[in-house]
Amino acid sequence: MAVILGIDPGSRVTGFGVIRFKKNRCEYLASGCIRMGTVSLAERLQKIFQGLKEVITLYQPEQVGIEKVFVGRNVDSALKLGHARGAAILAAVEFALPVSEYSARQVKRSVVGFGAADKNQVQQMISALLKLNKVPSQDAADALAIAICHAQMQQGLMHIQEGNKLVKGRIRP
Amino acid sequence: MAVILGIDPGSRVTGFGVIRFKKNRCEYLASGCIRMGTVSLAERLQKIFQGLKEVITLYQPEQVGIEKVFVGRNVDSALKLGHARGAAILAAVEFALPVSEYSARQVKRSVVGFGAADKNQVQQMISALLKLNKVPSQDAADALAIAICHAQMQQGLMHIQEGNKLVKGRIRP
Repeated sequence: MAVILGIDPGSRVTGFGVIRFKKNRCEYLASGCIRMGTVSLAERLQKIFQGLKEVITLYQPEQVGIEKVFVGRNVDSALKLGHARGAAILAAVEFALPVSEYSARQVKRSVVGFGAADKNQVQQMISALLKLNKVPSQDAADALAIAICHAQMQQGLMHIQEGNKLVKGRIRP
Repeated sequence: MAVILGIDPGSRVTGFGVIRFKKNRCEYLASGCIRMGTVSLAERLQKIFQGLKEVITLYQPEQVGIEKVFVGRNVDSALKLGHARGAAILAAVEFALPVSEYSARQVKRSVVGFGAADKNQVQQMISALLKLNKVPSQDAADALAIAICHAQMQQGLMHIQEGNKLVKGRIRP
């Protein structure tokens, strides 16, 4: 069993989603958005940092997944996104939590089944997977998707490790 | 009188410089580099964040200047630099210090006298201005230059404010 925090950092809005992964099932714990508003860069970064620290204090996740960003060609957006990502990662580091990075394609593939899914499909799928009464906002849905992707990857790793053990068991006399 | 911390953030090395600005003179207090090494992104950001927090705790600056970066055309470098800058700004925010941003051109102009000065000229000039026995490393010199630039800008603002007061004084009967 593990509590996983997914983070979808952005220069305007940072989404977060917390799930509990237990016996191959993902259970919804919380999700939401941290909106930066039009304050100074320093204040925006503090909002992300403090906001995520509060989420971590409240839900005590053991692992963190964050989106490995695709920044396109715009250098200025890349720099802004870097600031936000830096603040998000630092919030996790403050609690000594391991941070894993996943590409948007990996995340979509693990939730919707194919990498080119659109935002709306991700929202619908997250809502169905986690049995939510209400479709979460795009940023919150993306963050929950990252958490689910991390859970699946961890499970995959466990299977591989177990598989290795089996192989070793068979080889040994 | 004010103690000023200058920060030159980078994805590999972050330079810092601390000066005391008193009666139009800049006095050297400390400078150095935080080297990130080849650890994970999370660990690198923590090194910047913790390193700068230690510097702040030790020298108690009241103001912080940071380079407004020119990132060229490389989106990937911009993202990496954004991470480092985010961590550096957050360290200042943790102590509720005001952060001012200056372009490389502004910084060079205020230290060497012209915006297109090379790194070596900045190092030599910083060494002369602060009466150092030894030329500081490039990153440390850049950070000290940012601190000096901030001191000059603050002084400029003070002059303007004083000027405004004088004008008001003359206008009033």
